[in-house]
Amino acid sequence: MARVTYELYYWPEIPGRGEFVRLALEYAGAAYRDVARERNGMVEMTALLDGRGSGALPFAPPFLKHGRLVIAQTANILQYLAPRHGLVPKSDAHRVFANQLQLTLADLVAEAHDTHHPVAAGLYYEEQRREAKRRARDFIAERLPKFLGYLEAILGRGDGKHLVGTKTTYVDLSAFQVVSGLRYAFPNAMRRASKRVPKLSKLRDRVESDARLAAYLASPRRIAFNEQGIFRHYPELDA
Amino acid sequence: MARVTYELYYWPEIPGRGEFVRLALEYAGAAYRDVARERNGMVEMTALLDGRGSGALPFAPPFLKHGRLVIAQTANILQYLAPRHGLVPKSDAHRVFANQLQLTLADLVAEAHDTHHPVAAGLYYEEQRREAKRRARDFIAERLPKFLGYLEAILGRGDGKHLVGTKTTYVDLSAFQVVSGLRYAFPNAMRRASKRVPKLSKLRDRVESDARLAAYLASPRRIAFNEQGIFRHYPELDA
Repeated sequence: MARVTYELYYWPEIPGRGEFVRLALEYAGAAYRDVARERNGMVEMTALLDGRGSGALPFAPPFLKHGRLVIAQTANILQYLAPRHGLVPKSDAHRVFANQLQLTLADLVAEAHDTHHPVAAGLYYEEQRREAKRRARDFIAERLPKFLGYLEAILGRGDGKHLVGTKTTYVDLSAFQVVSGLRYAFPNAMRRASKRVPKLSKLRDRVESDARLAAYLASPRRIAFNEQGIFRHYPELDA
Repeated sequence: MARVTYELYYWPEIPGRGEFVRLALEYAGAAYRDVARERNGMVEMTALLDGRGSGALPFAPPFLKHGRLVIAQTANILQYLAPRHGLVPKSDAHRVFANQLQLTLADLVAEAHDTHHPVAAGLYYEEQRREAKRRARDFIAERLPKFLGYLEAILGRGDGKHLVGTKTTYVDLSAFQVVSGLRYAFPNAMRRASKRVPKLSKLRDRVESDARLAAYLASPRRIAFNEQGIFRHYPELDA
């Protein structure tokens, strides 16, 4: 049987939630197409979102095609990929825990997004700037320290270097992306907050300097954070 | 080996996210303790949330203890329980799809919550009423029809009665709770929206009238929707 290449579908111009899948595929050295970034790829992605494809209907990108399977929801995609590529330990307890942490990271990602879109994802930031300022203030004061402190506590209860087990897992890769995105969006808040989470900061730096990942991060396949994505830098939200 | 009873931990006065787990346990006829609703149960729950317990540290309730395992995140708990109680088909493809749908329901639940708390979960509704009105308007006009239409499409692509496979799964039970909650919170909007999702409405009614579940729903174990929970009825948000 020929090896089936993964097909990732995600918005072509932002790292967004697709990047969590991309990081796992890149770290694993897996062969994949980044379909919506190819010529006419958006047409293919739209057709699948409109239900003009076989397999499971996704509610939204990202989704992954693997053979006849269509898999949506970031944490679900990662849970599918990880055991196939040694990105999670073998034991059930570890896998359940990895998924728990990944879903908690997903909650943090959603809250980070809502700092600039507290009213409606379909409206421009400029149409909800006042609400965004209130929400971002609460996020920085209450939620950010709570989430980061939680991840630091998890590292403290483990080997101090990995969120799950004693090798790099997909959860570490996702944590790298989340902390990097938060640093991009809220440099002032993160400068202060990072001091209290030294283990998490080190984890981020270690993942970044991993040889395979460093090559990817320097490549054109990596999409830079920008003001269309989830982690946006608006200085007025990071006073 | 003695049969180990599940221990569910969740806020005692709201259905909230704990109810999705409760519905699965009740439908399965599984033995469980609803710990935080017992005398001194909140002390136990707080101790575990503060890290004074063994096993995985939860970020927030609900979490489930089963033997030495501590499992947090609603979709993760359900994914753990379902195969043990015949609440999901056996094939990997079905299980991946069930988890995908459950995570999409979780997104809908989070958005429904944020209609009354668009600024900060830690502030009172009354402190964010103006923002809530804007967010609820968008939720009703854009998000609600999109989510409900998606679930209806999934039913249309399946057997018309079940979201996954051809028997009641935990995803159907969760969909029952979500549609019920939305009807409670937004009776006007749901009266209009329900006409366009007849299969989903029927699924909700069928689950409600299931004999085992009907007994549970009539019992004191079932917590009614209320204005401390996720689905709150504020008439001004349902114009």
